[in-house]
Amino acid sequence: MNNFRFWSPTEFVFGKNTVKHVGALVKKYGGTKVLIHYGGRSAVKSGLLADVENHLQNEFVEYVKLGGVQPNPVDTMVYQGIELCRKENVNFILAVGGGSVIDSAKAIAAGVPYAGDFWNFFDEKVTINRALPVATVLTIPAAGSEASPSTVITKEKERLKRGHSSSLLCPVFSIMDPVLTFTLPANQTAYGIADMMAHVMERYFTQTSGVEVTDRLCEAILSAIIKEAPLVLKEPENYAARANIMWAGTVAHNGICGVGRDEDWATHGLEHELSALYGVAHGAGLAVMFPAWMQYVYTSGIDRFVQFATRVYGIENTGDKKETALKGIHALKNFFSSLGLPVNFEQLGARKEDIDRLLQTLAINSGGTLGSFSKLDMSDARAIYEIAAEVR
Amino acid sequence: MNNFRFWSPTEFVFGKNTVKHVGALVKKYGGTKVLIHYGGRSAVKSGLLADVENHLQNEFVEYVKLGGVQPNPVDTMVYQGIELCRKENVNFILAVGGGSVIDSAKAIAAGVPYAGDFWNFFDEKVTINRALPVATVLTIPAAGSEASPSTVITKEKERLKRGHSSSLLCPVFSIMDPVLTFTLPANQTAYGIADMMAHVMERYFTQTSGVEVTDRLCEAILSAIIKEAPLVLKEPENYAARANIMWAGTVAHNGICGVGRDEDWATHGLEHELSALYGVAHGAGLAVMFPAWMQYVYTSGIDRFVQFATRVYGIENTGDKKETALKGIHALKNFFSSLGLPVNFEQLGARKEDIDRLLQTLAINSGGTLGSFSKLDMSDARAIYEIAAEVR
Repeated sequence: MNNFRFWSPTEFVFGKNTVKHVGALVKKYGGTKVLIHYGGRSAVKSGLLADVENHLQNEFVEYVKLGGVQPNPVDTMVYQGIELCRKENVNFILAVGGGSVIDSAKAIAAGVPYAGDFWNFFDEKVTINRALPVATVLTIPAAGSEASPSTVITKEKERLKRGHSSSLLCPVFSIMDPVLTFTLPANQTAYGIADMMAHVMERYFTQTSGVEVTDRLCEAILSAIIKEAPLVLKEPENYAARANIMWAGTVAHNGICGVGRDEDWATHGLEHELSALYGVAHGAGLAVMFPAWMQYVYTSGIDRFVQFATRVYGIENTGDKKETALKGIHALKNFFSSLGLPVNFEQLGARKEDIDRLLQTLAINSGGTLGSFSKLDMSDARAIYEIAAEVR
Repeated sequence: MNNFRFWSPTEFVFGKNTVKHVGALVKKYGGTKVLIHYGGRSAVKSGLLADVENHLQNEFVEYVKLGGVQPNPVDTMVYQGIELCRKENVNFILAVGGGSVIDSAKAIAAGVPYAGDFWNFFDEKVTINRALPVATVLTIPAAGSEASPSTVITKEKERLKRGHSSSLLCPVFSIMDPVLTFTLPANQTAYGIADMMAHVMERYFTQTSGVEVTDRLCEAILSAIIKEAPLVLKEPENYAARANIMWAGTVAHNGICGVGRDEDWATHGLEHELSALYGVAHGAGLAVMFPAWMQYVYTSGIDRFVQFATRVYGIENTGDKKETALKGIHALKNFFSSLGLPVNFEQLGARKEDIDRLLQTLAINSGGTLGSFSKLDMSDARAIYEIAAEVR
């Protein structure tokens, strides 16, 4: 086990009718003038935005609004948010939405008190020293951004998708009402499930030894998701299933599954290029890339893949490690398929002919190498994209 | 799933040679004059106390010391600590030790800024509105107090053992170096293991439905402990095994295993009377009382006991629920025995003739009822003590 620091300071307020606490919570964490940051029409149409506004008004908290965040949130929206916050003397950012809205809110929170161009944080030229407090009212269980220190923003012009992490960006509170997810369409629900499973698996596949507790925690979250996912798709208003999926997404990414172990994150790197180039949902890209990555790397640590197959999917260990490991990978791919997720380039709408282009931006964004379970260079990345392109 | 709030703000600094960060961490959290609170000779003899003092001196942090905390920490020590802190203008409490030291430190932290008698908090007459920040250098993985908002203190004269919880008592940081646990004697190691397993099981045995994620998390921690426990007893200097046990103890009690579900805590109530009366280790008492409680209540929710048997101990579900459930309970008892833990009154040094006396204080401390998985009154408590007294 590696040495580690673990700090997850977010206050989670989880359950039915918890949005009503938003005003009191904003005040508790020092907010007096709030930017409500949100996405498209669904927050308006569902009445959630009006609810949030009412609850802020009831506590005499002032606010301004900025909507229109798109999936794969972009720098131009962040610049707009920073400008608005400065003009209106905003001292608290409230994200009402899913991971894209929250990530955009985090970038704004870091950018407001920073004199330079906020993109410098994503270029890793500077670290974040100050940020406005961020909080969330979560509507899409997927990205885990409601519990994480990280944000991913796409530089629109160059289609560069980059992430940055700072403990200053951990939300101070996250309100999570599973009822808000009842109306999520099946495809978005499934993308979210692939995303949270990927967050666990990026941590699970490690070469670090002596990490039984986190191994078991990872397997626990995956097992719970595998049980609940078909249920939420079949019964979108099943509260317990929605609640389990929502909380799984948080625990998957608040860090507890990864402490003391090298994490991988190659698949996220590979996927980012797909969603940057095609604008596809991150979860959809992950469902394609994770089995492809597994198929390429499993011999680099076959015991771990055997453990995955046996403990997560209950596959019998026949003694033939390769066979058992491959059965686990196939079980995951079949599971993704059963949720209606794409598992190859064609289903995703990606093209084999674009692989050179994907590798070009990947080389820039990754610095030429990816992963830690198996250290990959650009020729490995090409091979994995090719597997994803060829798989049926 | 129940609605819940989850907030676990402690910064965990985990691994080899992490004690050297103590000075910087105290300063980060605003400490300028520290009370170092500790137990007996081991912290002195091992050199840990001198290390801590050196690291504080290196950061120019002033401190005073108060040692001598005993297992089952008592009110008289808390009064002494409060007086010392006031006299010396201490603004930060650093517990160097295990759960007893940390619990004593928490009570002092709450008592210093409170004008009345600190015992009022434990009488539930008043709630804690302010407390000095508490931090820990953990030496015994067991109580989980390094991550929890709770403290248990014994009123010495009346042998009343009472708990209190307040989010203000969550440690601001906890330094956890598994190497510090290499010298823990086998019996203390085993008591700690029983304690952390009990913390998980008090949460696991619930009547709340739709809690798959937390069920799996509980099973994950129990499975990891069951694997690592024999190893730490056999190889006390096995770093990975010690590290897994240490982190398991934290996750077992930082709340993440219990969110959204009714917790039970009847067994802790039953055990507290044993350690109050006989001064036995809390973990030893739990090893005796948990199987006895299980045997008494399992028919109140047999499916959960079947799930425990099959998922935690891998016992085959024969279809006969009663048989499967009982096999799980026996497996736990055998596991405790295999660690050298007592599993009945005789092995603990408790006497059947004292049951009336145990019930007398239990009735006062519990208010006459215990638990939620099966709501118990004093006649149920008697029956469970009798099982524990009669078991061989």
